[in-house]
Amino acid sequence: MGGNVVKIGVIGFGTVGAGTVKVLWERQSDIERELGVRIQVARVIDKDWVRERPVVVPPELRGEDPALVLEDPEIQIVVEAIGGVSPAFEVVSEALSRGKSVVTPNKELIAKRGGELLEIAAKQGVDLFFEGTVGGGIPIIHALKEQLAGDDIEEVIGIVNGTTNFILSAMSLQRASYEEALQEAQRRGYAEPVPTMDVEGFDAVYKLAILASLCFHTKVDVDSIFREGITRLIPEDLEFARELGFVVKLLAISKKTNGRLELRVHPVLLPEEHPLASVTGVENAIYVKSRTRALTFRGPGAGGEATGSALVGDIIEAIRNLKYNCRGRVGCTCLRELPVRPVEELVMQYCVRILALDVPGVLGKIATQFGEAGVSLSAVKQPVSTPGRLTNIYFLTHEVQEARLRDSLERIQKLEVVKDVYAIRVERGDS
Amino acid sequence: MGGNVVKIGVIGFGTVGAGTVKVLWERQSDIERELGVRIQVARVIDKDWVRERPVVVPPELRGEDPALVLEDPEIQIVVEAIGGVSPAFEVVSEALSRGKSVVTPNKELIAKRGGELLEIAAKQGVDLFFEGTVGGGIPIIHALKEQLAGDDIEEVIGIVNGTTNFILSAMSLQRASYEEALQEAQRRGYAEPVPTMDVEGFDAVYKLAILASLCFHTKVDVDSIFREGITRLIPEDLEFARELGFVVKLLAISKKTNGRLELRVHPVLLPEEHPLASVTGVENAIYVKSRTRALTFRGPGAGGEATGSALVGDIIEAIRNLKYNCRGRVGCTCLRELPVRPVEELVMQYCVRILALDVPGVLGKIATQFGEAGVSLSAVKQPVSTPGRLTNIYFLTHEVQEARLRDSLERIQKLEVVKDVYAIRVERGDS
Repeated sequence: MGGNVVKIGVIGFGTVGAGTVKVLWERQSDIERELGVRIQVARVIDKDWVRERPVVVPPELRGEDPALVLEDPEIQIVVEAIGGVSPAFEVVSEALSRGKSVVTPNKELIAKRGGELLEIAAKQGVDLFFEGTVGGGIPIIHALKEQLAGDDIEEVIGIVNGTTNFILSAMSLQRASYEEALQEAQRRGYAEPVPTMDVEGFDAVYKLAILASLCFHTKVDVDSIFREGITRLIPEDLEFARELGFVVKLLAISKKTNGRLELRVHPVLLPEEHPLASVTGVENAIYVKSRTRALTFRGPGAGGEATGSALVGDIIEAIRNLKYNCRGRVGCTCLRELPVRPVEELVMQYCVRILALDVPGVLGKIATQFGEAGVSLSAVKQPVSTPGRLTNIYFLTHEVQEARLRDSLERIQKLEVVKDVYAIRVERGDS
Repeated sequence: MGGNVVKIGVIGFGTVGAGTVKVLWERQSDIERELGVRIQVARVIDKDWVRERPVVVPPELRGEDPALVLEDPEIQIVVEAIGGVSPAFEVVSEALSRGKSVVTPNKELIAKRGGELLEIAAKQGVDLFFEGTVGGGIPIIHALKEQLAGDDIEEVIGIVNGTTNFILSAMSLQRASYEEALQEAQRRGYAEPVPTMDVEGFDAVYKLAILASLCFHTKVDVDSIFREGITRLIPEDLEFARELGFVVKLLAISKKTNGRLELRVHPVLLPEEHPLASVTGVENAIYVKSRTRALTFRGPGAGGEATGSALVGDIIEAIRNLKYNCRGRVGCTCLRELPVRPVEELVMQYCVRILALDVPGVLGKIATQFGEAGVSLSAVKQPVSTPGRLTNIYFLTHEVQEARLRDSLERIQKLEVVKDVYAIRVERGDS
């Protein structure tokens, strides 16, 4: 162990990289005392050394070329916090191939190429840890890989994107429009200037790929995940939901039924008693249900120091395994390749919003189309409106197969009095 | 590893012991596939083989004497599910001394003598895991020992007793009296015929000792934990709380301030936005706040198969460490001995219920005593009552030191018009 000092190299010094170094330095003496080894951040790599960070790296530790870490034989643990697939993939695979353990919060990398990297790690007998990839500071990855390794998991449902959860909370609590809520999120730094990755659900797709892979011990192709964003939601949707005892959340959902997987990210009406329903603002939470237990893990979904703490946990784990010479003790758990169920064949309830002209007979025309498509209705709400003007009419269906629901919506869309149709899926949970 | 088969001995075949064996057998092939070793329950010990269990143990595996497990050199992992301190302590220390790893859900044993047992485990280089001791099926112990090992934890607050949480939920939702709610819990098998361990907070004290010890890396003496049960609560208390935006919970609380610990179990008024507030019925949850992140772990607090799943997680961990020859990689984390802050010096808000005669001037008399003791009031509620009859008057104080609050209550108790005085502490949290 290099004279009882474990040297760490950090590649990528953005929000999470800097948060990790900050937390590590703050807690260094306690961690060293607990592990019985000394630790040293030996090198920090970034292209930009002008930007201000919450922690100051002495000039002699700074560098711009990842090779300074990768080619240093004394560095045994590498923190990759570059983000994205390239050059992160090359950096991580090179580090692993050289016998270094790697800690990374890079969700896109792990979702898309985690399997290959875990194979390299296994071949080299080193660790690849990625606790920070899902739920920021929430310790869900190790829990799934270790404490829940024996569980027969049936479903995993997550609020895994803080930006969209903040926007939906603001739309619900302040009756803000989507655009207003997004601007508020941007003002607070919770949303990017170009928010597509978050609001269209791409970020949640990466996280779901990782969660489902761990829960169901299977390879997951990110392209097989159904995805729908939150941009079409309006405050009235959330109000109709609330009247029926639901909240609206962007959820990442995976369930196993008869050996096949559901994999989907979309807005959902969730009963307000569900453990995820009370999670508001930028918080994240992951609900995991196995045959024997239903667990919820809740906490900060992002933030340099919260996610940094998750990475420090991974670093500690990597050091323990170095010290006890048992690196690679928890490897890849993707033992299977489960087929994916198409969304069209799923059966659930739907909340449907139909923008239609308030003219005599409109409700009858719409209801007739639902009926002819075989969709039966559980609740209807037509607010007081002005005759001849457009108004939103809401429907809650009974359980129906998605293919049938889509058929009904196509028919309704063709009615002359109907201007727009939008459906939100309902997740009943157990409660 | 004895021909690639890991043999497991189970001592104590009650609810959790049987739940563990059931889950282990159900999941055996998947676990073996993941670990790459075969596992075998080689012996199950119990005094009573008449009682019915959810799983049938073949006669040739049954035994009555723990020595059959302890003295079998091929058994490398022992599950102790006897409960209580004796003979569990002797069984576990003997197993560890003979080089076996031990998995136990025995909270009283770990709370009272965990330190000694972890020392034996460290000396022998074996594992002692106790995931099932706190929160039943919730994987909180490994999270605290491993993923949160680098966190500077400031507070841990738990709903760690399902019986009392069920009773308080029933009192709140159905306006049941304490006695009615207790009887309902007993009917459902959630409460013992003699419910003292639960309703007086002893069970929660054991769990808090374990949680605080792990969170603050310190030895905790169970006798140093302040304890107050839920038997004096009445439905009106919960109603007054609700009107002010609080729920009432029995909480196990430990906080670190300037190197000293608070350690207390008692009923609490908790803001309804707190992550623990929505946890109802027999569910448990643990909230952990460090400088960088606030996490909530929620799930089933008891149940043979839920807790059994936690023990199976521990067994898997113990097998991994056997396989990679790194037993003892996570040992005792009690590096310190932090002093305990007496409850009298804590500063918080209180909800005070005073049973007094409805006679002219009674409110003035009480309020004067609060004022003279230096306790200022934030809210008062005197319901419409019958002159000359006893009535409950409620007060919410501003923040005040407990010693001063107690002084005020002593003065008020002495008033001739006052028949009874009861105070509930308020936990503000961050929200």
